[in-house]
Amino acid sequence: MSSQRIVIVGGVAGGATAAAHARRLSEDAEILIFERGPYVSFANCGLPYYIGEEIEDRESLLVQTPEGLHRRFNLDVRVNSEVVSIDPATRQVEVRQRETGEVYRERYDHLILSTGAGPLKPPIPGIERPGHFTVRGIPDVEAILEWTTTRKAERAVVVGGGFIGLEMAEQLRGRGMKVDLVEALPQVMAPLDLEMAAWLQQELRSHEVRLHLNEPVQQFDTPGEDETAQASVVVLKSGRRLPADLVILALGVRPETHLAKEAGVRVGDLGGIRVNEFLQTSDPHIWAVGDAIEVRHWVTGEWTLIPLAGPAHRQGRIVTENIFGASMKFEGVLGTSIVRVFEMTAAATGASEKTLQRLQRPYGVVHLHPAAHATYYPGAHRLAMKVMFDPGNGTLLGAQVVGKEGVDKRIDVLATALKARMTVHDLEELELAYAPPFGAAKDPVNLAGMVAQHVVHHDIGVVQWHEVSHLDPKRFLLLDVRDAVEREEGTIPGSLHLPLPELRERVEELPRDKEIVAFCQTGQRSYFACRFLAQKGFRVRNLSGSYRTWQMATREQALAAQPHSTPGPS
Amino acid sequence: MSSQRIVIVGGVAGGATAAAHARRLSEDAEILIFERGPYVSFANCGLPYYIGEEIEDRESLLVQTPEGLHRRFNLDVRVNSEVVSIDPATRQVEVRQRETGEVYRERYDHLILSTGAGPLKPPIPGIERPGHFTVRGIPDVEAILEWTTTRKAERAVVVGGGFIGLEMAEQLRGRGMKVDLVEALPQVMAPLDLEMAAWLQQELRSHEVRLHLNEPVQQFDTPGEDETAQASVVVLKSGRRLPADLVILALGVRPETHLAKEAGVRVGDLGGIRVNEFLQTSDPHIWAVGDAIEVRHWVTGEWTLIPLAGPAHRQGRIVTENIFGASMKFEGVLGTSIVRVFEMTAAATGASEKTLQRLQRPYGVVHLHPAAHATYYPGAHRLAMKVMFDPGNGTLLGAQVVGKEGVDKRIDVLATALKARMTVHDLEELELAYAPPFGAAKDPVNLAGMVAQHVVHHDIGVVQWHEVSHLDPKRFLLLDVRDAVEREEGTIPGSLHLPLPELRERVEELPRDKEIVAFCQTGQRSYFACRFLAQKGFRVRNLSGSYRTWQMATREQALAAQPHSTPGPS
Repeated sequence: MSSQRIVIVGGVAGGATAAAHARRLSEDAEILIFERGPYVSFANCGLPYYIGEEIEDRESLLVQTPEGLHRRFNLDVRVNSEVVSIDPATRQVEVRQRETGEVYRERYDHLILSTGAGPLKPPIPGIERPGHFTVRGIPDVEAILEWTTTRKAERAVVVGGGFIGLEMAEQLRGRGMKVDLVEALPQVMAPLDLEMAAWLQQELRSHEVRLHLNEPVQQFDTPGEDETAQASVVVLKSGRRLPADLVILALGVRPETHLAKEAGVRVGDLGGIRVNEFLQTSDPHIWAVGDAIEVRHWVTGEWTLIPLAGPAHRQGRIVTENIFGASMKFEGVLGTSIVRVFEMTAAATGASEKTLQRLQRPYGVVHLHPAAHATYYPGAHRLAMKVMFDPGNGTLLGAQVVGKEGVDKRIDVLATALKARMTVHDLEELELAYAPPFGAAKDPVNLAGMVAQHVVHHDIGVVQWHEVSHLDPKRFLLLDVRDAVEREEGTIPGSLHLPLPELRERVEELPRDKEIVAFCQTGQRSYFACRFLAQKGFRVRNLSGSYRTWQMATREQALAAQPHSTPGPS
Repeated sequence: MSSQRIVIVGGVAGGATAAAHARRLSEDAEILIFERGPYVSFANCGLPYYIGEEIEDRESLLVQTPEGLHRRFNLDVRVNSEVVSIDPATRQVEVRQRETGEVYRERYDHLILSTGAGPLKPPIPGIERPGHFTVRGIPDVEAILEWTTTRKAERAVVVGGGFIGLEMAEQLRGRGMKVDLVEALPQVMAPLDLEMAAWLQQELRSHEVRLHLNEPVQQFDTPGEDETAQASVVVLKSGRRLPADLVILALGVRPETHLAKEAGVRVGDLGGIRVNEFLQTSDPHIWAVGDAIEVRHWVTGEWTLIPLAGPAHRQGRIVTENIFGASMKFEGVLGTSIVRVFEMTAAATGASEKTLQRLQRPYGVVHLHPAAHATYYPGAHRLAMKVMFDPGNGTLLGAQVVGKEGVDKRIDVLATALKARMTVHDLEELELAYAPPFGAAKDPVNLAGMVAQHVVHHDIGVVQWHEVSHLDPKRFLLLDVRDAVEREEGTIPGSLHLPLPELRERVEELPRDKEIVAFCQTGQRSYFACRFLAQKGFRVRNLSGSYRTWQMATREQALAAQPHSTPGPS
């Protein structure tokens, strides 16, 4: 096996890792990398931060250079070199050198497709106008900076509220630009459920990003006579016209599979290259990794497209191990992801609630708002946490965390627990590091486990924020057990007020013919109230996440439904 | 079961949690808490930070008050009330009200001992002199502040380099005091292995804490005529005399078990109350939780004393569940712990290397120094990581992490993996959150898994830092594969220099009659070198953690051996 010839199409993330790992496995293998663009192994996740000048040194984006890879790993790296076709019968690729136009062929024993995913550009009229940019590679960000500087661009419209859209909105605000963020869905960050994305939306608004949700772009217009716009006027479904000196298209990505398709390699229903668990395509000499492939979701078992760097790198290692004779399986993806938007960070792992609903899979769900570290130590902020689990045995299905600190830590612990197929009981039992600056004796993850256990054990039932408006007042009583000072800041309409400390004395004021849905600020005190009331013979349920979840979700729902009233600078 | 009378001795941590949880389980139970001190449920982990004024508000240390606990949970909380004896035959406790001197008895159905652990005060001559303080409760820190202020104390001697000692040294420096830290062992922070504690020691020195390692205190002297010291002169084994305006005794704790012993309750070999897996003592009506008990170590299975808040709270819940009829097991402790010392944080979970050595348990160990987040994003610092694992099947046994950021996250992920009995292969497969501010596409935990796998798979053998000085130069060649500029900063004596990029061309310069031990700065490039050399037929091993681990460990070893030359202000 020692004189293998391995050809890799695409020199970023999974492709670069596969190449370096192949060299560690075999000093004698010939390893060729063809990269269509001018750079290999660059830090594509860092691109937005270069635009916002958080990353000042362009060189630092270049993780590896062709020369460095040659020197260190004896790799034959050819940039500006596009593989234009594959001939599986003769095991050859046809390559075009993009600068010289030269076309030539190279033989392979094993071909690794790391072709990635290209930016989606739906056929919206005017989408190809000048001043419109996607954010995929270093040339893109250089073009954005060039345009922004020479045109003295002041108003940016970012189309798409996913990772790249949010990071670009943040970074362009950081450059002092006025930013409109346009999203066709009713929320930003589709991996999150609506009430969790709401925290990011609030953060965007508070940093004067004008949010337009539920607003597909209808067209990109040439500016009219009264309109000053260096790029386009972005016309929304509502008719609103947003003049833009710069348009960022962040509408998502789709796997680049034309090479694979033309070579007769099987492509799945979602449009990604279909691989087996060893990352082998339908042609046993062709392997594929990264954003170009469909992968199995760890929780749902569904085929899915999850363009993330971590899995791509893992796949790069696995595929090379297998080429050299191992039988290493790629175990699927959890979809663990994170985004920072100004002061707020949001992260998710596993299945979202909307995914579980779509699959009609039974699930329990809890919301909570624990402090990220001991409240007696300065600077503690509350997290918003959501955990989904199997209602029968408590096995973890997914989690989402939003907050100002400690979000990455909690999602990583939850992702580890998910990978270990842990239950919510196991979460309660985790022994996590505690000192006042870092956590709490009962860490938020432990608390999430406890709260979820109440549901698994049918201890106290829960009501979710979106069910509140459907509760029939003839059958349900909403009970606010917070202190008066908290209630003055706002409450759920129609609720009765009876503070927890007075509950024991005044319990007989409560009606026994209705089911009581208790809430407080976060769900903890109302749980205590429920326990008490249940023991007194009342039928009770706890509002999960309580006022804090309900208020954030319903407020954002209302704002999203009225795009024209979105606050922000004009 | 509904009219139980539950008496709890000790109202902090596990005791307070047990009480609150008991109320949630039973509205009718009578729940009495006796607390010897003036406060219940206070934030004992926050005490050092109150002294350093990071926590400014004394009230914030009081997590709960007796009144609050009564109002919210209908608990009968009696502070300044010392349980002086237990009569198991009649199921009664004898209580002395410490202010009035009144003595009375209370009946129990179930007694929960949450008596905690008291500060160790070995019989060192002069240990009881004025100006000496332990840090256990709010009265202690009030007395320290009172003494410090009225005496205008400028020089503090902290005796003991564990959690409290380190936190106190940091906080007293924060108050502008000169601080000597005295430790009988050759290192601070016993849960860490020496080369990991070394990073904390360097941090202490760089913040002008004078470290005296290997220096048991011989006595606390009355200041002589030439010595100005408000408290004592601390005399070390070496004869050195440290004048102190304030002495903090942080020599560790021991379980408070006299009540249990006198009641005939079984105490284990380590001096803690012995409980079964349900946290029941040898008397079925007496239960025990927290720092007072011996617990099973999750990794080693040994009985151990681990005074930590997290397990105490868990035990509080478990014990109440069991009193009310459940059969919930306490699954043992990992000993997950963390300490911040100025800019540096150190954390550990599971078994340390020295514990594994003591138990003569086979283990593999790796060191690595990955960046805490993507290096192309600003502010990335390197972590020092150490992972211990079963050399046969790769099951995780323990981990230690030190660094300036992201330490708590990595130790929590590793503690979760340890609890799930994951292997180092599983660590490699974890899918953790990655965005440039938070991590890397290959997270440090993934990298630790990869590096450990090389050992499990007998891919490339490793040499540990402490083995370097024992390598026979006739049989081993130390090979420095770093760049010249790195080598100029220092190297391992006797090593040969051959930079990695030149290795392919110059490989024939290397001798084939010796085993090559390669090193670089962190162990990554030297691993690449090893892979290459092994394929070329050389016998090779990699220096784990490479120059960075070796240099820090040997430097601190040398400094610890010469306490008089310890740098720092005089």
